[in-house]
Amino acid sequence: MVVMSTVSFAQQSLFGGEQIVSPEIHDDNSVTFRLNAPSAKEVKLAGEWMPAEGWTPGAVTMRKGDNGIWSFTTEPLEPELFSCSFIIDGFRTTDPNNPFIVRDVASVMNIFIISGKHADLYKVNDVPHGTVARRWYDSQTLGKRRRLTVYTPPGYENSSEKYPVLYLLHGAGGDEEAWITLGRTAQIMDNLIAQGKANPIIVVMPNGNVIQDAAPGEGTDGFYKPQFMIPKTMDGTYEASFPDIMKFVENNYRVKANKENRAIAGLSMGGFHSLHISRYYPNMFDYVGLFSAAILPNQDVSHKVYHKFDETLKTQMENGFELYWIGMGKTDFLYESGKQYCAKLDRMGMKYTYRESEGGHVWRNWRIYLSEFAPMLFK
Amino acid sequence: MVVMSTVSFAQQSLFGGEQIVSPEIHDDNSVTFRLNAPSAKEVKLAGEWMPAEGWTPGAVTMRKGDNGIWSFTTEPLEPELFSCSFIIDGFRTTDPNNPFIVRDVASVMNIFIISGKHADLYKVNDVPHGTVARRWYDSQTLGKRRRLTVYTPPGYENSSEKYPVLYLLHGAGGDEEAWITLGRTAQIMDNLIAQGKANPIIVVMPNGNVIQDAAPGEGTDGFYKPQFMIPKTMDGTYEASFPDIMKFVENNYRVKANKENRAIAGLSMGGFHSLHISRYYPNMFDYVGLFSAAILPNQDVSHKVYHKFDETLKTQMENGFELYWIGMGKTDFLYESGKQYCAKLDRMGMKYTYRESEGGHVWRNWRIYLSEFAPMLFK
Repeated sequence: MVVMSTVSFAQQSLFGGEQIVSPEIHDDNSVTFRLNAPSAKEVKLAGEWMPAEGWTPGAVTMRKGDNGIWSFTTEPLEPELFSCSFIIDGFRTTDPNNPFIVRDVASVMNIFIISGKHADLYKVNDVPHGTVARRWYDSQTLGKRRRLTVYTPPGYENSSEKYPVLYLLHGAGGDEEAWITLGRTAQIMDNLIAQGKANPIIVVMPNGNVIQDAAPGEGTDGFYKPQFMIPKTMDGTYEASFPDIMKFVENNYRVKANKENRAIAGLSMGGFHSLHISRYYPNMFDYVGLFSAAILPNQDVSHKVYHKFDETLKTQMENGFELYWIGMGKTDFLYESGKQYCAKLDRMGMKYTYRESEGGHVWRNWRIYLSEFAPMLFK
Repeated sequence: MVVMSTVSFAQQSLFGGEQIVSPEIHDDNSVTFRLNAPSAKEVKLAGEWMPAEGWTPGAVTMRKGDNGIWSFTTEPLEPELFSCSFIIDGFRTTDPNNPFIVRDVASVMNIFIISGKHADLYKVNDVPHGTVARRWYDSQTLGKRRRLTVYTPPGYENSSEKYPVLYLLHGAGGDEEAWITLGRTAQIMDNLIAQGKANPIIVVMPNGNVIQDAAPGEGTDGFYKPQFMIPKTMDGTYEASFPDIMKFVENNYRVKANKENRAIAGLSMGGFHSLHISRYYPNMFDYVGLFSAAILPNQDVSHKVYHKFDETLKTQMENGFELYWIGMGKTDFLYESGKQYCAKLDRMGMKYTYRESEGGHVWRNWRIYLSEFAPMLFK
């Protein structure tokens, strides 16, 4: 007999595995970060829990130990999903001991979760889990196959029931991966449904960049460096082609295909898209969510989607709806434009729910908004 | 009107985006790598196309330019999916300008593709695409919800046809993400099906680590540093519980639930699992693929799955099958044990197909083996 002992597999050196744990979350929710970089002159830890300077996350200098391992222990942190990175002699990089990373546009950063409160919704808990599928649909309007992400709730596959649908749209620089990775949509929905706080619903996360067929690296353009603002994202093309997505969903899933059972929401640029899609097709959605929305179009853009703004918004109001929800952070750079949009709605007499949160234009808020918005749907 | 110009979104600084392209693939398939690290004393580029030393990929020193940007241009490379990383003053890290990364156990590395030949199968081409779903099943034997990845071929959702199933198993350190990320299973299947070389089939990629409910970061254990060898992966528990997975698949997908339409294959530890599952349930699979398989169990393990090895293998042979396929790299550290297993089969008179490739115990081979194995199935 040939004997394969497990020793044969002890190939950790293959994977460059250092025997360091980082981050280490302590019982009091303080966190120790460690990095083996003996020849570095200065190592900083950047993280979302520290005050940011503009768009740059706060950072703190780590201390070098005699063993060449740099370390830093935070104060106890509040429950949250945090991103972080290291800056080694000015070079920003991820933690080689923390393989949990997310991409945002062209940047990759580590993440970790401090348990408790709202952050427990972001964890995979021992509850029934929905299915997350990456599927492709034919966009007849755009003339190509395009990819989208679909969350179906626990039990969907073993029932003959029809479900309501939330269309959940990403921001500039995002794609069909954004809400499912940084947004923790599957975990939030699984947990809210298990707690009886949200109805079981289908969540469709399309790609709002019409020049892409899929997220960078997932489509026919192959691997390339993603850019923050790409053409044709806010020029009306996406909004006009949105019925292709709805048609696909309504033909391919057991959905309640009526206004009472359709919601649309999005963050930043996705809030802009949600506003315009729900207004341009003014009898389609009973639930609209604008999360830190970029409210109004560039005046240079002349697509017919943006014509007759006031008229179509009035039609949307008159057609009736259940919820028009606006969430905005107090320090968001879009705060004032959000306020002005609310004032416009006030003048029209259009009802809406306004939710002001701490903080700015960040995922932390968008996860919270989704966690609050989903329980209000289809009740 | 409030005007949102696109300028408001020019937040690239948020994402630390340097205006560097790396890697840049030239027309002759040479590749330039660039890294902005002005204070580094030495930067090396490690990559799979260079001769490895044991498990450590080959590396080459980069040259520092006057602008503080290090660069290196390779010779023209052969078509392949390559992984790579930088080593900055001894610190191994990914390329901040290349967000395309894969995790292998606890390590993260960049990837890129040189087009042509077999590597074209690894690209997302303009062909119909199947669906990739992450689903959860109840393992009654293991008493928990567990996650698996399922590829359904193009057209699956819009047909009433039943499909054959390939169960595709990962190696030690892998999980239900391995074959879909490093293995490029969805791209390989989409392309082989579009070329008429493979039948449309369902590919099920389960998690073979029975102490996990899901891949690291995707299950109830949360985010933790993955280990290479974890307990209970090769102790019989997985093999014995495998019918839970088949039962789930056969109850939840339109499959041809018979031996003629079932295949099982796996790499390394997954080859070990495929060997034992197909032998322990000797009338279940007409197609078996052992890719660089770890052939025989640790003699210390006494699970009943490993008893009566010769007897059950003989039963499997006598029950008949279509294909017993063994792929092995010439420099694989398991090469000799593979040879000995072939000799054992020869002595028994059990037919098999032996495919010897260049190279060793690497994903490059496993992608090639899948690309060759899939076209032989269910013909």
